[in-house]
Amino acid sequence: LFAMNNSNSKFTTNNSHCIDFNDVKAAYEIIKPFIHQTPLMQCSAISELAGCNVFLKTENFQKTGSFKIRGATNALSHSVKEDAIQCVITRSSGNHGQAIAYVAKSMGIPAYIIMSNTALKCKKDAIRSYGGIIVEGKPQLEHRKKITEHLLKEKGGIFIHSGQNPHVIAGQGTLAMEMLEQNPNLDAIVAPVGGGGLISGVAIAAKALKPYIKIYAVEPENANGCYLSKLSGKLEYVVGTEATIADGVRANIGESTWPIIQDLIDDVITVSEEEIKQATVLVWERAKLVIEPTAGVGVAAVVGKKLLSAKGFDNSVKNIGLVLSGGNVDARDIAKLIANA
Amino acid sequence: LFAMNNSNSKFTTNNSHCIDFNDVKAAYEIIKPFIHQTPLMQCSAISELAGCNVFLKTENFQKTGSFKIRGATNALSHSVKEDAIQCVITRSSGNHGQAIAYVAKSMGIPAYIIMSNTALKCKKDAIRSYGGIIVEGKPQLEHRKKITEHLLKEKGGIFIHSGQNPHVIAGQGTLAMEMLEQNPNLDAIVAPVGGGGLISGVAIAAKALKPYIKIYAVEPENANGCYLSKLSGKLEYVVGTEATIADGVRANIGESTWPIIQDLIDDVITVSEEEIKQATVLVWERAKLVIEPTAGVGVAAVVGKKLLSAKGFDNSVKNIGLVLSGGNVDARDIAKLIANA
Repeated sequence: LFAMNNSNSKFTTNNSHCIDFNDVKAAYEIIKPFIHQTPLMQCSAISELAGCNVFLKTENFQKTGSFKIRGATNALSHSVKEDAIQCVITRSSGNHGQAIAYVAKSMGIPAYIIMSNTALKCKKDAIRSYGGIIVEGKPQLEHRKKITEHLLKEKGGIFIHSGQNPHVIAGQGTLAMEMLEQNPNLDAIVAPVGGGGLISGVAIAAKALKPYIKIYAVEPENANGCYLSKLSGKLEYVVGTEATIADGVRANIGESTWPIIQDLIDDVITVSEEEIKQATVLVWERAKLVIEPTAGVGVAAVVGKKLLSAKGFDNSVKNIGLVLSGGNVDARDIAKLIANA
Repeated sequence: LFAMNNSNSKFTTNNSHCIDFNDVKAAYEIIKPFIHQTPLMQCSAISELAGCNVFLKTENFQKTGSFKIRGATNALSHSVKEDAIQCVITRSSGNHGQAIAYVAKSMGIPAYIIMSNTALKCKKDAIRSYGGIIVEGKPQLEHRKKITEHLLKEKGGIFIHSGQNPHVIAGQGTLAMEMLEQNPNLDAIVAPVGGGGLISGVAIAAKALKPYIKIYAVEPENANGCYLSKLSGKLEYVVGTEATIADGVRANIGESTWPIIQDLIDDVITVSEEEIKQATVLVWERAKLVIEPTAGVGVAAVVGKKLLSAKGFDNSVKNIGLVLSGGNVDARDIAKLIANA
């Protein structure tokens, strides 16, 4: 891990990447016994709206209700191999926190999850049900960063970043290996981007397995740091990301994920809050899948046909793998969303 | 078909049955290319609540959103083989009508679906989207029976009963074959009962494949004709079944399904409206599956532990196959249900 060259990559990359495909393969071996192989499903209504064959990777059915268990399992497995750990500390809007708390519990390690006081109740409840200890901070990231430093000093232990930890990125990349095992004919993969751990891991694995596959990241207009970074060619940081309903992607991309995104992501598509809500409800009604709005971000780009005009998208792209990142949502929020749809 | 003996049955049966296992096997060959093999999924929260391993048969993902496509495909395939058909006529609360309309369209046959004027808008919309012609009647069955007679005289064509047509029953039975293929270790199968086509077909197939498997039917307290029939030992008919939220099981069992139910169903469990609603919301929240309240009927018996005290249920029953019959629900009804949960 932390290989600073791309000797096994088939691409011309300008940057060094914090992981390569070997790290993803190693992660897959480690985590396979502990995760579900979630179904890759089709829904004719969604394929019709998209104008191509859409294959839904249902990580809403994954353990702890999101793909985050992949990175969390890999990162904690590496950590315990290397050291005896007193505790694990992380910051999360919820899904990464649930995953860390769940894995830490299975290893008998205390887990401290630093969350915004605006985080979803269902995600907090789930973390507590896995024995995680929640430490609340303000919605502003700076405040929670200070809590992190303080907690690390007080408790010791290790910090596992939800997006920038290379073991986490390698773990999330296993999703692409699984998707291409389930359907080797995928021409493109679409996933939401927040901190970028998912899309970076996916891009590393997918482009190693299938060099001409297209990788598209989708993010809310209200949290468009990845889009702006690709536009300017340097890592941009946006504030005010709390303004999106997609709580899982309120984070910014960072030092680990940006070089991979810059090199391997074909395009970044942004979608409005209205598009996210409609896409989420559409998946419930037509695909019969409960997803959280963060998963709806990727769906919005596909069913709204914005994908069709993305860079590199042409007639050769017939089969799209669409990552439904998670399904952790309060039932009452579902009700509100539908009432307003 | 219509075999009046049970030569291939391993059971002591008191009645003649309108189908035997050969009919189900033949149906499976016919319909296999036209239906999805829906996933058999697990959800740890539901297994924990149930006190045993629960395997969810996700027919909410089936074509047209319910298992009804199985019986409709088999019945219409037999009909077109036997005769040139002018049109097909049926009565339905919605799911059987959607299935008939969908299959009829693929065969180029007009489909008339007689429905109560209280039927769900989403089910009517789906029928129209498949080209079905809806004829509305009063919620009282007698009124819609008169419409049926009138329409048959006027249009000709064939009538395919949603519950009592033997080809329909054989088609629904394929569900049990598929479940036991996916998990041969199932010790019991639980499914909702309305007209009884599903539970009868399932019982015929499952007990032929695995003689000691237990088959449990679940129905709403507000539509408990199957329960009363098993209690009295003769076919009972209840009125006022509109009182249940589970619109798919407002029908009564009948002449075709009762003999099978009497012989092969181990027990009938009834559940309250409140239990149905809670179970439906539970599946959305924990299993991340959108199901309709009719599917929640079976879930209610399992998560509410009523199943544990059903006849024939003992320590040997470890793995339960639970049929999630369908997922056709108006989003606004979801919202209302959650608001009231």
